[in-house]
Amino acid sequence: MSNSKQPASALSSPRFCNTGTFMRMPRMKDVENPDFVIVGIPFDTAASYRTGARFGPAAIRSISAMIKPNNVLMGVNVLEGLKGADYGDVNITPGYILPTYDAIEEELQPIVNAGIVPISLGGDHSITLAELRAVAKKFGPVSLVHFDSHADICDEVFGQKYNHGTPFRRALEEGLIDPSHSIQVGMRGSLYDPDEHKLAAQLGFKLIPGHKVREMGFDAVAQQIIQRVERRPVFLTFDIDFVDPAYAPGTGTPEVGGFTSWETLSMLRQLKDLNFAGFDVVEVLPAFDSGEITAYMAANICFEFISMLAVQKKNGLR
Amino acid sequence: MSNSKQPASALSSPRFCNTGTFMRMPRMKDVENPDFVIVGIPFDTAASYRTGARFGPAAIRSISAMIKPNNVLMGVNVLEGLKGADYGDVNITPGYILPTYDAIEEELQPIVNAGIVPISLGGDHSITLAELRAVAKKFGPVSLVHFDSHADICDEVFGQKYNHGTPFRRALEEGLIDPSHSIQVGMRGSLYDPDEHKLAAQLGFKLIPGHKVREMGFDAVAQQIIQRVERRPVFLTFDIDFVDPAYAPGTGTPEVGGFTSWETLSMLRQLKDLNFAGFDVVEVLPAFDSGEITAYMAANICFEFISMLAVQKKNGLR
Amino acid sequence: MSNSKQPASALSSPRFCNTGTFMRMPRMKDVENPDFVIVGIPFDTAASYRTGARFGPAAIRSISAMIKPNNVLMGVNVLEGLKGADYGDVNITPGYILPTYDAIEEELQPIVNAGIVPISLGGDHSITLAELRAVAKKFGPVSLVHFDSHADICDEVFGQKYNHGTPFRRALEEGLIDPSHSIQVGMRGSLYDPDEHKLAAQLGFKLIPGHKVREMGFDAVAQQIIQRVERRPVFLTFDIDFVDPAYAPGTGTPEVGGFTSWETLSMLRQLKDLNFAGFDVVEVLPAFDSGEITAYMAANICFEFISMLAVQKKNGLR
Amino acid sequence: MSNSKQPASALSSPRFCNTGTFMRMPRMKDVENPDFVIVGIPFDTAASYRTGARFGPAAIRSISAMIKPNNVLMGVNVLEGLKGADYGDVNITPGYILPTYDAIEEELQPIVNAGIVPISLGGDHSITLAELRAVAKKFGPVSLVHFDSHADICDEVFGQKYNHGTPFRRALEEGLIDPSHSIQVGMRGSLYDPDEHKLAAQLGFKLIPGHKVREMGFDAVAQQIIQRVERRPVFLTFDIDFVDPAYAPGTGTPEVGGFTSWETLSMLRQLKDLNFAGFDVVEVLPAFDSGEITAYMAANICFEFISMLAVQKKNGLR
Amino acid sequence: MSNSKQPASALSSPRFCNTGTFMRMPRMKDVENPDFVIVGIPFDTAASYRTGARFGPAAIRSISAMIKPNNVLMGVNVLEGLKGADYGDVNITPGYILPTYDAIEEELQPIVNAGIVPISLGGDHSITLAELRAVAKKFGPVSLVHFDSHADICDEVFGQKYNHGTPFRRALEEGLIDPSHSIQVGMRGSLYDPDEHKLAAQLGFKLIPGHKVREMGFDAVAQQIIQRVERRPVFLTFDIDFVDPAYAPGTGTPEVGGFTSWETLSMLRQLKDLNFAGFDVVEVLPAFDSGEITAYMAANICFEFISMLAVQKKNGLR
Amino acid sequence: MSNSKQPASALSSPRFCNTGTFMRMPRMKDVENPDFVIVGIPFDTAASYRTGARFGPAAIRSISAMIKPNNVLMGVNVLEGLKGADYGDVNITPGYILPTYDAIEEELQPIVNAGIVPISLGGDHSITLAELRAVAKKFGPVSLVHFDSHADICDEVFGQKYNHGTPFRRALEEGLIDPSHSIQVGMRGSLYDPDEHKLAAQLGFKLIPGHKVREMGFDAVAQQIIQRVERRPVFLTFDIDFVDPAYAPGTGTPEVGGFTSWETLSMLRQLKDLNFAGFDVVEVLPAFDSGEITAYMAANICFEFISMLAVQKKNGLR
Repeated sequence: MSNSKQPASALSSPRFCNTGTFMRMPRMKDVENPDFVIVGIPFDTAASYRTGARFGPAAIRSISAMIKPNNVLMGVNVLEGLKGADYGDVNITPGYILPTYDAIEEELQPIVNAGIVPISLGGDHSITLAELRAVAKKFGPVSLVHFDSHADICDEVFGQKYNHGTPFRRALEEGLIDPSHSIQVGMRGSLYDPDEHKLAAQLGFKLIPGHKVREMGFDAVAQQIIQRVERRPVFLTFDIDFVDPAYAPGTGTPEVGGFTSWETLSMLRQLKDLNFAGFDVVEVLPAFDSGEITAYMAANICFEFISMLAVQKKNGLR
Repeated sequence: MSNSKQPASALSSPRFCNTGTFMRMPRMKDVENPDFVIVGIPFDTAASYRTGARFGPAAIRSISAMIKPNNVLMGVNVLEGLKGADYGDVNITPGYILPTYDAIEEELQPIVNAGIVPISLGGDHSITLAELRAVAKKFGPVSLVHFDSHADICDEVFGQKYNHGTPFRRALEEGLIDPSHSIQVGMRGSLYDPDEHKLAAQLGFKLIPGHKVREMGFDAVAQQIIQRVERRPVFLTFDIDFVDPAYAPGTGTPEVGGFTSWETLSMLRQLKDLNFAGFDVVEVLPAFDSGEITAYMAANICFEFISMLAVQKKNGLR
Repeated sequence: MSNSKQPASALSSPRFCNTGTFMRMPRMKDVENPDFVIVGIPFDTAASYRTGARFGPAAIRSISAMIKPNNVLMGVNVLEGLKGADYGDVNITPGYILPTYDAIEEELQPIVNAGIVPISLGGDHSITLAELRAVAKKFGPVSLVHFDSHADICDEVFGQKYNHGTPFRRALEEGLIDPSHSIQVGMRGSLYDPDEHKLAAQLGFKLIPGHKVREMGFDAVAQQIIQRVERRPVFLTFDIDFVDPAYAPGTGTPEVGGFTSWETLSMLRQLKDLNFAGFDVVEVLPAFDSGEITAYMAANICFEFISMLAVQKKNGLR
Repeated sequence: MSNSKQPASALSSPRFCNTGTFMRMPRMKDVENPDFVIVGIPFDTAASYRTGARFGPAAIRSISAMIKPNNVLMGVNVLEGLKGADYGDVNITPGYILPTYDAIEEELQPIVNAGIVPISLGGDHSITLAELRAVAKKFGPVSLVHFDSHADICDEVFGQKYNHGTPFRRALEEGLIDPSHSIQVGMRGSLYDPDEHKLAAQLGFKLIPGHKVREMGFDAVAQQIIQRVERRPVFLTFDIDFVDPAYAPGTGTPEVGGFTSWETLSMLRQLKDLNFAGFDVVEVLPAFDSGEITAYMAANICFEFISMLAVQKKNGLR
Repeated sequence: MSNSKQPASALSSPRFCNTGTFMRMPRMKDVENPDFVIVGIPFDTAASYRTGARFGPAAIRSISAMIKPNNVLMGVNVLEGLKGADYGDVNITPGYILPTYDAIEEELQPIVNAGIVPISLGGDHSITLAELRAVAKKFGPVSLVHFDSHADICDEVFGQKYNHGTPFRRALEEGLIDPSHSIQVGMRGSLYDPDEHKLAAQLGFKLIPGHKVREMGFDAVAQQIIQRVERRPVFLTFDIDFVDPAYAPGTGTPEVGGFTSWETLSMLRQLKDLNFAGFDVVEVLPAFDSGEITAYMAANICFEFISMLAVQKKNGLR
Repeated sequence: MSNSKQPASALSSPRFCNTGTFMRMPRMKDVENPDFVIVGIPFDTAASYRTGARFGPAAIRSISAMIKPNNVLMGVNVLEGLKGADYGDVNITPGYILPTYDAIEEELQPIVNAGIVPISLGGDHSITLAELRAVAKKFGPVSLVHFDSHADICDEVFGQKYNHGTPFRRALEEGLIDPSHSIQVGMRGSLYDPDEHKLAAQLGFKLIPGHKVREMGFDAVAQQIIQRVERRPVFLTFDIDFVDPAYAPGTGTPEVGGFTSWETLSMLRQLKDLNFAGFDVVEVLPAFDSGEITAYMAANICFEFISMLAVQKKNGLR
């Protein structure tokens, strides 16, 4: 493993040693011109039911030491051509969403501006609004690819505009995303508003609910995503509750009837040619996890994100 | 959400507040002429392996606060036309099955007689015998639709007639169910009696073991259930161990090779036109649960029960 | 148990049935002129480290079913002369402290004004500020008796004025408490500000740190509290992390070197003649609890609060 | 370690190998004329709150592999002069207390009659009644030394005579114990009957409640026990909830304000000269344990029981 | 149940009594000429990430009490024609792999030589090398059927030749297995060596990675296994991490994207005509398990192994 | 907090952000001439019962974020005059003790030689032998102050010389410690060798067993330690099982009858004038911890170590 950009190999350095960064990658300050950075955003104040996702980034990083650099199905070593780093955590303000949004935007903006792809670890889903602000400031309104069991397009929750149930309504209002090239996938479960799925359409989104995903099949869903997004800059946001609670119990608002780890990762891989401007995986809540399986699933989702970037780099597309 | 029959919406009242009833519905004494009631039957004395299902009703009620009133796939708001209430718990006698049976029957009888559909939360599966006594006193022998990994038709367990392995044998003997219109679905795992499945047939039941369910497919199974039951009054009993332990670890006698949450709920929904006289979901054991996923699955099963009633009410069938 | 004000006895109704209120007491709307009410305040947004105390009130109520009405050491049946009720939960706004403070104050004010003693269940310690607002509006600046491992008198945390580390600084500034008759007991552990204990003195408080409690002995501490408070209206606030993590692991910011359950309850009992205007017990965090021992300790602390009121009532002092 | 009566030493055989008997001792059928036997009585049907103590014997045996044969404070190798064996479990009937009582008595009687001291592992406290029947059939009414947080002398619970809250009332009625030489120690916590402690006295017992234990000190308590019992055959029953929940969270009805492991074991050791006819340790409930600390505490209590027998054997008193 | 070779039936003896052997079968010393034995090998020193699999054999045995003797899908009572026994645990040396290998080989050799099929419970996967030594000494190089998410064919891990990542490389070098009739199934997840799957081919193995299993379908995979192995003596080794973490969270190096319990057991059953010389199931790690579902899955895998032997015996093939 | 040597204050940076080093201190490479370093030694291969202490360093570091820099009882800000850093983890070889010993010694030697005090986080107690090698190479035979429930002076365990039960026997043989100025404190629990405590004396140690600690009182014990050690260079090794399992459940071989967190820390503080050459705290096993209380206790013990160094520095003694 002579390539110095590779993180410590577990063949020589045990995987439970010197953890603290994603895949035990170097910290951002020690890497020149990384292609992507892992950013922790440990904010959970906007969660409506269970809290504790502030410990999500630490849990994902800890178990990510189990991930090795070669992605067999993608045919790529994620760190061979690509340079990654771990940024650490955004200095959020627990309990206060507005200063937190400012901090996220402020810390992500230079990353985005430098052409580095941010891969953020939540935290609750409210953080994505601020990530989108940073991304849209550079790219203009981006396409949104949103995997989740909830659409997160409420106007208000508890009489408040900012909550983990409202980020994409706000993002639309702020002009951060282009709904006509955006898509939401996997929504399921009981609803307050029986017309929430229609509301998504009215807002301009395409929404494929969970039961439609099963009817159409994962390949068709992937194709719809690709067609919807085209070559526009795209932000992919992944709420871990897209996955069934059997596979991801450690989350704040789990929803039964979800997808397996295999289904999820297979669908993600098909998106490898999208023009990614940023990613996040949110809502990992370690206090309700079991055997760290939720955190490990989240780490693998990040690994697929990184792999997609690596393939693009390898193919000269980045 | 001006409809006063709706429970508190989490959009204005956080879902972790004022829990204690199913879906935070009103208590029975505060509702006139409900269509259905949720009844806790926290009895676990008849369990043969792990005990602790006495805490099942409280766990299901607690997490049921996450369920919202609109069932998208059924196209219905469960509390819009339908009135529901939470009865509270039957005053069972821990450690003593006979007085408990008396208490269940005595408390359920007026409910059933009033034309209210009881949806009971166990407790171990022995409780269903007493529920059937109450139901059959009004309707005569009912059809039984029984989802479970075990047939629960032993004659005796530990030399005793009443145990969570015997309720349907007793129900037959007592003439509470009509086996020729009853069906058992999902049985799997190792057996003491190699001919237990034949025994079910000898007793007059139709039994579709788990591996046949997979061979036939869920649609065909649903059709068989519907054909078997016809328009007779039917009692649907759901043992949570029908579901695979990955999806429902919190139960007393889990069985591998079971069904997913999606498969389960999809099959249930197809039964929406049956003439339901009562329901229960049993064997949720919180001490062995993980991330409350078993309790939440049980709560969703109840939600499907309620949704089926709501559809029938909406369609003028109730 | 003919006294109808008594909650259901576990000798006839199992303690795991019909839970949902503290000690399975009646709800407030069903009780005329209660002497005290239990109030849930499931707000945890202001916690600086672990969150999840929003599930504290439900956990305390659930396990409180194990408490029986006679307090042997106090020689009183807590519900014989005294009338109690469970108010339910304040309609807090998760994620937003200012509207939550308004809600707490607004909901508590009529209780306090009616001469009912509120016993609140947290929730993080930030809630006490709003409770004090309601109490002070009626009584003027009250004496504060504060058991905790932290003094909670920071000026700001994360650059914010409202946090679970600042409530007593704010309460002083707002004139809600009279520091010259207030006392803080049990502070220990490492500090950011080496002079925090002196700061307490500068603010006018008396602060007895944990190591002094051990030097002086619990009787002497109790005497100091009594002398400090005199006959003024007093608000007793109890942070569960006063107790050692061995006895109360389920909390957000545990501190080693704390007190045992026996020491704690014994000291509390000596305060039985204070002129109580209100109480709370805060910072119970079920996701980190083990065997529900923290929630049960909190429930017993409430039981001592109620017992003190009952003794006063019995003695004609209320 | 040439003495063949010694169990496998962990110095040569790892303690996690070949477990299944207490301290990995031989099974009863492989030992001629043992001095004592460990008997599992995995019955939890009579528990009033949490169930699951049926898994207590297995948990205690499992962790007992950590106990080594020399008791330093007693100056004895417990298996050097003394012969012990593990009987296995009584064939109880889950869910049915009367046939279980018969089974316990029937299986224990030959042991007792053969002069072998039974050390039983519960299971809930109801089992002690049947153990006392077997012991009293040989010895006549025995002295009872009872460590517990509850007196267990109710007449009825849930309208039933047999429950884990009634065994000593029944034992008195059946003439199995001589109350004038019996003593109950450690009772604490809230009560239904304010006069329960007086009731114990009326029944002829001496009862030292928990707060008196602290006032008197452990040495004085031990002396009172010794004086009360004199040289009569004595049955020592130990409910693990005597110990504080911090030290023993895994039990069905924990009670705060209890005793530490050191206090408990120190007091027990002082009873080494009593004329023991039998022992049990009950109410260990693994599903609520943490780090197996409750089971290990119970195993150590048994080890003290065995050590007392070993000292007596060494001194020619047995 | 008059057949004395049957273990205690749970219909008369509760399944939580007298555990300690697999399916509560008799111990080896009490059975003459068994057909197979269960052997615990509680060694976890060679694990590269999480340790604790030393408690795997005890956990599997404990929960195996839930398995009953009739395998419906195989049409056989596993103990009717077949005689089984529980050998107990190999006297391994924790912390030292070489003396452990000697102990395993030494203790297994007489079993294998006597024509008894060993079914070993790990422990980490390193133990299989020593098992193969014993088997190959009798049978010569055997066919290996290896289910796992990892190929375990590294040359060195941490600079060491013996580790749970190297056993099959060593087995090849030692001539214990015939790679041309061996097959590895289910490998998936990220890799250090991008060519690890090719390396397997270079070493002579056939390796079907996890994604190919899904493409081919389980029937085709089973056929490939059967064709590869032919009638040669075969050792089947099953690493529990073949199964998805949702179904088997309790393991040392879980891998997402795995197989369900139903898929796994269905595939295994198709191998029933292979000429089995030995089996093991490894890497069960109870400290990370949830609701004992991993241990129960492992126990069911063993039950399928035993069932295959029973079918062969019934058909005169053994 | 203008002092740049201070770690991030939780008043401005939440304590769950940017964890990964002890107290979120800088890494060693970023600190010039530190006074002390925290060194992780995640090796658990030599544990005789439970394994998993390899995750101890990560768990202690994670929760250490809760510790603030001022030690009130010692009157010192631990990082004001003193410079600390986190070294990261020694590159141990899981499964192999001899190369691990080499790695520990090799990595610690330059630290020790540079006059930096190492504070190591275990890992099992076997690691202390290698730490002592590094320390003794610089200082010659050091005084050992050893807090533990076990003496760890066996000659062999499982026939092996290196195990977590043998390090101090080996250290004596290798001349690394001067027994005549060394002392062992807190030993308790059952023993294999009844004369183990005498053996300690024969080896030249002073051993104060746990029950003597209670007889003498903690002040007297501290005095004996001080008198024994005098001004010699001393290595303080702290096995977390010195503390009672109620306070420290997360360990490999817990022992009942232990000490509280307050007793432990109070005694440690009295040793503040010893001439420390090194420290460690070992045997923290997160998989058996509850609410992270064991890891937090260990972090606080380290904080006391650091505080003692800080006091010495402040007083010009370092």
